[in-house]
Order: sequence, then C-alpha cells, then structure tokens
Amino acid sequence: MSSFLKTTGEMMIPYQIIEKKSRGEALSEAEIRDFINAYTDGSIPDYQMSALLMAIFIKGMNSEETLALTKCMLESGEQMDFSMAPGFVADKHSTGGVGDKVSILLAPILAVLDIHIPMISGRGLGHSGGTLDKLESIPGFNVNLSLEKWHTLVMEEKVGLIGQTGNICPADKKIYALRDVTATVRSIPLISASIMSKKIAEGIQGLVLDVKTGNGAFMQSLEESRALARSLVSIGKGYGIKTTALITDMNQPLGKAIGNWFEMKESVQGLQGNGPADLMDVTFALGAEILSMAQPGLSIEDAIAMQQKTIADGSAFEKLLKIVELQEGDPDVLIDMEAYPKAAYRGVILAERSGFLSEIDTMGLGFAGIQLGAGRRVISDEIDYSSGMYIHKRIGDRVETGQEVLTLYSNNEKALNETIDQLANAFTYSESEPEIPTLIVEKIE
Amino acid sequence: MSSFLKTTGEMMIPYQIIEKKSRGEALSEAEIRDFINAYTDGSIPDYQMSALLMAIFIKGMNSEETLALTKCMLESGEQMDFSMAPGFVADKHSTGGVGDKVSILLAPILAVLDIHIPMISGRGLGHSGGTLDKLESIPGFNVNLSLEKWHTLVMEEKVGLIGQTGNICPADKKIYALRDVTATVRSIPLISASIMSKKIAEGIQGLVLDVKTGNGAFMQSLEESRALARSLVSIGKGYGIKTTALITDMNQPLGKAIGNWFEMKESVQGLQGNGPADLMDVTFALGAEILSMAQPGLSIEDAIAMQQKTIADGSAFEKLLKIVELQEGDPDVLIDMEAYPKAAYRGVILAERSGFLSEIDTMGLGFAGIQLGAGRRVISDEIDYSSGMYIHKRIGDRVETGQEVLTLYSNNEKALNETIDQLANAFTYSESEPEIPTLIVEKIE
Repeated sequence: MSSFLKTTGEMMIPYQIIEKKSRGEALSEAEIRDFINAYTDGSIPDYQMSALLMAIFIKGMNSEETLALTKCMLESGEQMDFSMAPGFVADKHSTGGVGDKVSILLAPILAVLDIHIPMISGRGLGHSGGTLDKLESIPGFNVNLSLEKWHTLVMEEKVGLIGQTGNICPADKKIYALRDVTATVRSIPLISASIMSKKIAEGIQGLVLDVKTGNGAFMQSLEESRALARSLVSIGKGYGIKTTALITDMNQPLGKAIGNWFEMKESVQGLQGNGPADLMDVTFALGAEILSMAQPGLSIEDAIAMQQKTIADGSAFEKLLKIVELQEGDPDVLIDMEAYPKAAYRGVILAERSGFLSEIDTMGLGFAGIQLGAGRRVISDEIDYSSGMYIHKRIGDRVETGQEVLTLYSNNEKALNETIDQLANAFTYSESEPEIPTLIVEKIE
Repeated sequence: MSSFLKTTGEMMIPYQIIEKKSRGEALSEAEIRDFINAYTDGSIPDYQMSALLMAIFIKGMNSEETLALTKCMLESGEQMDFSMAPGFVADKHSTGGVGDKVSILLAPILAVLDIHIPMISGRGLGHSGGTLDKLESIPGFNVNLSLEKWHTLVMEEKVGLIGQTGNICPADKKIYALRDVTATVRSIPLISASIMSKKIAEGIQGLVLDVKTGNGAFMQSLEESRALARSLVSIGKGYGIKTTALITDMNQPLGKAIGNWFEMKESVQGLQGNGPADLMDVTFALGAEILSMAQPGLSIEDAIAMQQKTIADGSAFEKLLKIVELQEGDPDVLIDMEAYPKAAYRGVILAERSGFLSEIDTMGLGFAGIQLGAGRRVISDEIDYSSGMYIHKRIGDRVETGQEVLTLYSNNEKALNETIDQLANAFTYSESEPEIPTLIVEKIE
C-alpha cells in the first residue's frame, strides 16, 4: 500500500480502519477510540460503522482490542461511584435466554443480605426476554429513574432496578442498535464490550455472569459459551472487579413461565418459597458467587442457606415489595396476583405421542412468546404483558399422548393460532430416557 | 437456528441474508435480487447494505452468485440496443491504473475501422484516473448526453463517449458509492458485477478487458489479477458476448503523462504518430482483440497494421476531432495544444543517486496527481485540468545523480511542495540492471 494512503488527511482514517480490520489485522487502541468517538458524535455515518462491525464480526478482535473497545464505550458516558457504600457492591448479568427471571429474585435476596445491587438491565432482545419488560408488567413501575435517584435508592435500600440511560455508555447504545439490524450481534468481542462497559459503569466491586449455553442461548455451543465467559471474566478482572461466570443450561426454558407478567408471578412465587427447582438452583448458585466475593471463605452451602433464609422469613419478598413501591409500581398486584388482567385467548400444545420429552426448540419458544405479544418485533411494538406461555414438562419427563405440554395465552387470536401451528415441531419425544442437560455446567474464574 | 427465524415475516429478510453471507454461505439468485432491489428503491438502508457488502468482501461469492448480482444490477436499469448497427459493436474496459489513456486513442481508431463503440466510461477513482475527467479537460466537452443522442452518435459516427447515467444500472451506481466509503471496493465479485453490468447494458457484441496488475493497480498480484480477469470473462461469455482479457503491467505509469490535460495531449500525440511505445503497444494489442472478434481469422499482426494505418493517414485523429465537436467540445485546443492554460507552479524530482531506476511507487504517483489537483479527494472537489506530472524514466532506464525523473505541475504551490516531499521515496534505484516488467503479461479467454 502506498505511503500516500496514510498521509492524505483525516478523511482517509475511517476507511483505513475498516480496511485494516477487514484484512484481519488488530486495531490499535487509538484507532478504536477515534472510530468509536467519531461514530458516537455523528461524524462517522452508520454505513461505515456497520461495515466495521461486520469486519469485526467475521475477523474477530483479540483481548487487547476487546478491552480497548470496552474502555471507549465505558468512557463515552458517565460512570457511577459507589465507593462510599458501607458494604460490598455487586451485580449479576445473564447473556439472555428464555424464561430467565433470576435477576428479579436475586436482587432483593442479595439486598437483604447487605449486598448493594446497582442493577442496570436490558429489554427483550431477539428471542430472549428482558428484566425491564418484566418489571414493567407491574403497573406504574418506573425503570427510567434519574441516575441520582437510582444512586440514592441503591445507597439507602441497597437495590435499584433501572434501564440503560443515555448517560451510561452512549457509544454502546448507538452501536447496539446498529448491530441489531445488521446481523452482527453474535460476536464475542462485541458482546463482551457491550456487556462489560455497562457493568463497569455501574461502579461495582463484584460481578457474576450467567453465560447461557444451548439451543435457547445466543451462544449455542459450550465452546462458544466458554469463550464468551472467558472474555467477559478477563475484562472484569482487567478493571479490578471480582468476576466469575457460571455457564448454565439453556436447552430448555428456566422455570415454567415465559412472558412478562407470568415471569414476574413466578419470581414472586420463588420469593414465597414456591419456585421451580431449576430456577431456584440457578438463582442461589449465582447469589452464592457474589456472597463469597463479599465474604471470602464463605462456603457455597452456607451462601445458599443464607439466601434460602431470606425466602423462608419473607424478607426478600418484603424487599421486592418495597422496591416496587419506591420505583412507583403498584405492589398490590404482587400480593393479589390473580387479580391481574388475563389474556383473552388460550391455546395448548399436546403431546402427539407418548414417551420421554427429549428436546425442546427453546429459541422457537422464545420467538413464539414474541409472536403472542410478549416481546417486540420492531422497536415501536407495544408489549402485551399478559401474553406468554407455561411449559409443563422438562427434558426427561415422561409424557402420555394428548397430555398438555405447553399452554399459550394471547390477546391476539390470529397470532395465537399461527404460533400453535409454528410450534408443531418444537417438542421432540423419544422411546428411551434421554440424557438430561446439566443445569450448572461449569464455572469460569 | 430456530424455524421461527424464518417465518416471522418480511422484516427478517435483509437481516437473514446478511447473516447467511456472514457465515460464508452462497446466496440464492432470489435473495440477491430481493436485497439489491430493496436497496435500490430505498427500502433497505445504507447500513444494512454496507454490512452485506463487507460480508461479501470478506467471504466472497461463487460464480453463480456473481452472475446473479450482475443480472440484478443490469436489470435495475435500461439496456441499450445496437442490434440494428450494420457492423460489430464492441467496447474496451480497463480496471484502472496511472497514466492509462488507452480509451481515448482506441475509440477513434476502432471507429475508423468500422467497429461501433458505445463507450460508457468512469471518473477517477482512488489513485486511478478516469476517461471522463480526461475528456472534460477539453473545454465544453459534454459527457452527459442523453442516451438517445448518444445512441444516434454511435450509429452515425460509430463512437460516443459518455458517463454512466442514472438510467444505466442504477443499483450499481448506488452500491458503488457505498463501497467507495466502506473499504469494500477491492472485491472480485463486486468489481466483476459492477463492471460487467454496465458493459452488458451497452448492448455490445464484443468486449476486451485490460486487467491491470502491479503496484499501481487495484489488484496488485498476478494471481488476483488473473482471478478478476477470469471472473469478468466468464460473466461476459455467460451473456453471449465475445470477451477476452489482457493482463497488462501497472508497475509503472502507462506512457509519460499523468493528469487530465497532459493525458489528453499525449493521446493526441499518439494519434499523430508520436505516442510513447508502451502506450501504443497496449492500445494496439487491445484493439487487435476487438478487430479479431469482428473478423475471425484476422492475424494479430494485420490487426495492428490496420490500426497503425489509421494513425499514419490521420483518420483516427480526424475522428477524435469530429467526436469532440459533436460532443460540444472545442477541437481547437487539440490542434494548438500549446495554447492550453499552463499551471502556475512547476516542481521536479531529481535522481538522488546514479544507477538504474528499479522501482516506482505507482500508486503513490496516482495519489500525488490527486494532491496536485488532477483528481478528487471528495466528490465535491473541482479538478484542476492543467495539473499533473510527466515521468521521464522507465524501469530499467539508466539515470545519473541530479537528473530529472519527474516534473510536477500544479496551481497550488503548497500542495506541490507537500507532494514533492511525499514522493521522496517514490523512486528506487539499483546498481545492477533490474528486471523489466513484461508489458502484456497474458491473455485470458
């Protein structure tokens, strides 16, 4: 390449950076910073950023580049400071799956146990649900508190549940929207920088990551999930945050409820001691990671027992009610849950044969939920909080022909019927007992 | 991937096509057509197209995909019909280099020899010059004739020289502009479809391609140049057009003149029998390809002799003057060439040592020309037609310390001085006689 290409002025720079990455070369921190900053302030257009994102998506980034990208995104916005908090400040983040409502249980449990949880969550994404949408199924619940008000909540109540504001990692926000429409979401460096910049901006001391693996996860193979977990943990440690990751199974929904209000309800049941075993196991395992960061030497058994106690004595549920009230939501719906508006239409999927449930199209179920009204296909879609599904069987369960496997609820009859048709092959049955996926696969630290 | 991804409606389609190509899978003709048509009519935004272009750039396209892309671009606009022409209808296209003014010589030569030349040319691109810019150095010359007027010119005068209009391959026009700013130009399938759709739209029966190779070409290695030549020839043949390609050397400028008016002047000198040998050799070799397509069995020697005769008898130059006049240009500047306005500033590059000229940074010379004013850095730049360069030595020539190797002309003194500084290492000298690059490397048919 001629030396002229390097000296013909600023105009050449974005082009050259795209070109360098398209050849698979590593970008310098300065190149990454210039590109990201210029994109964030609008001087690089979407079409150049999407070309760079695709080049990164295909060619990858090494760990130095990923750390530099995280840093740029982090420094594009405000960073919270909880150094004045008297206790340990931590958060939990999931890479996203179907039926995953762990954050809603874990935030109040840990807050009761003196952990400060400045939790910034996301909305539903692709086939996967989002904590914010679930919280918003509670009438009045406000996830858009000012950062000041949220900071006060975390300091005083030990937990505040908000969404990403324009002040936190604005570069990530803008890039994320573009990735979402250019098929560049499923990239380990891009996912890592996006997740970790927002978590680091929270000003936390500890972080546990729930990296989902399986056919309902963004990373379907264990190998990819491991690579993502390692990338996330390495960035966290690079910033001096105690970070571990649990790789957990997403070959079937977590718990039985899928859909915003249904998941909120199941979370409350969990906090009342009636949660499904898989959901509670994952919740306690993730919670134990944070508790043992806060209290080195604490055994996993003791950490689980501490969490169970917050459920048995009602303190975790009380904490949730308090938070709902302080965030302008109506706590009464969580007390008399049957009064919540019901969907107009109900449908079922029956087992077409007897045998063992051996496979579930988990991603298909996630998309089915969106189609029923529980998620957005385009950003402007309104969510129907009372639509969703209940899954009655788990992999390995014995089923008889005609038994109800899935119940679907929607206010859109046409969508309900189409969804039932499309789920025709979502469940697979076998003669012999199938292998049951391990729930908590491994820990990366 | 869940079946839901495939059934959630039209909105998913661009995303899925981008995603498929990013995995390196071949796209179907229908997928390519839907994407290209939706982009052309504005329903797919630039940022999705640039993501797809980057995926194609990195992952490639097979020959079926490239043919389908060519077809979509071709069918996005009007196609010319010269089937009523009494003689052979053909064109020549170069992949672009420095000092390449062959089209300006070849069009009138072949027109005199009864070949119809419906030539649609381009502007300067990157470091490479463009026929349209050179023609426009003639005051008044109009490259924006209506397609009707141009058709009449080709029918009556056998040659018409215009630029790509909005009616010819509009899809290519829009995509090309995007490739130019997203570092996705240098892709064999994208280049092939872009070139060939426009050439096929001309309604020609024969086509000779000048595929440049070397450090002043877009494809620098012989291997890449061959791959491009094969791709172009294969598309031409797929459309029933007699197509051959000559791979020619671009490790040094073609001829001595670089810059629009200087190249126009050298073309006239060539048509008057005073052209540099390398320029004339390439011109005649390319012309011979077309003549032997029109007249199968014609020997290369005879085809060259026929062309030389049009120069010796003045008929080719007369034809150029006629065309200039019919396209509203002032033919007098081509008759009294010394009257043309001269650049205000002149600079030189001297040999810093004696020896043999062994290497030239040809792309650097191309960019230097742009900096002097002979090309555009951004689309809105105005060209200074009297700026440019003369190169006095060729690779293998003996030089003595202090001898003038390059003369530069510009109306911008600062740019001239900067260019001279930047060209400090553009020429390399050796003790022993270097290998001289072969001018016409090979033929692909």
